[in-house]
Amino acid sequence: MGALDFKQVMVIRRDLGMGTGKIAAQVAHAAVMAAERTKQKKPDWFHSWFEGGQAKVVVKVQSFEELIDVKNHAESLKLPVVLVQDSGLTQIPPGTATCVGIGPAPADLVDKVTERLKLL
Amino acid sequence: MGALDFKQVMVIRRDLGMGTGKIAAQVAHAAVMAAERTKQKKPDWFHSWFEGGQAKVVVKVQSFEELIDVKNHAESLKLPVVLVQDSGLTQIPPGTATCVGIGPAPADLVDKVTERLKLL
Repeated sequence: MGALDFKQVMVIRRDLGMGTGKIAAQVAHAAVMAAERTKQKKPDWFHSWFEGGQAKVVVKVQSFEELIDVKNHAESLKLPVVLVQDSGLTQIPPGTATCVGIGPAPADLVDKVTERLKLL
Repeated sequence: MGALDFKQVMVIRRDLGMGTGKIAAQVAHAAVMAAERTKQKKPDWFHSWFEGGQAKVVVKVQSFEELIDVKNHAESLKLPVVLVQDSGLTQIPPGTATCVGIGPAPADLVDKVTERLKLL
């Protein structure tokens, strides 16, 4: 399997009114946490991806329920997944679920969860 | 030193006309790469930050020259720093320098480099 066959996908809520800087920080939280989790659970996936271009895709959902559906679906496929809950110092209430990070993982597996979602 | 005394800062160019999704992906690249670099060079900094809230700040610059100035300044203070160059598949030419990631590192050290920059 080639390096391009691994990717990491971040799924961000677009119903919270977050600005660009806030969104970027939430996506970065998800990316770092999911990368660390993958490194522990699937080190070969992490290293193939890290050395091979670190493909990242950012997609969007419009509600908490949609975000949790994505998380549950990813977990049911045994993908490494993290849920970001904001500390709420700015813009949104503490504990708000903002973003999910998946992988890095084999692209065909991640696609089962996220390919129907629109790019941010 | 408490957990809140560590932070990671991402510096993004705002002169490239990148959209929100593109910006979020570049910031996430910088965050993952800088976190990995810090883990190798300063593991105690990484772990204090990772276990203690993972504070992240995203700030902006308006040119390539400003971005490189930030990178050079951070390196002169021996901070872990990475430069993201986009693969250029969408929106901007291949190899374009888009973003710098610094740390995580002690906040007072990072502030010497980034405190004058505006939040994204």
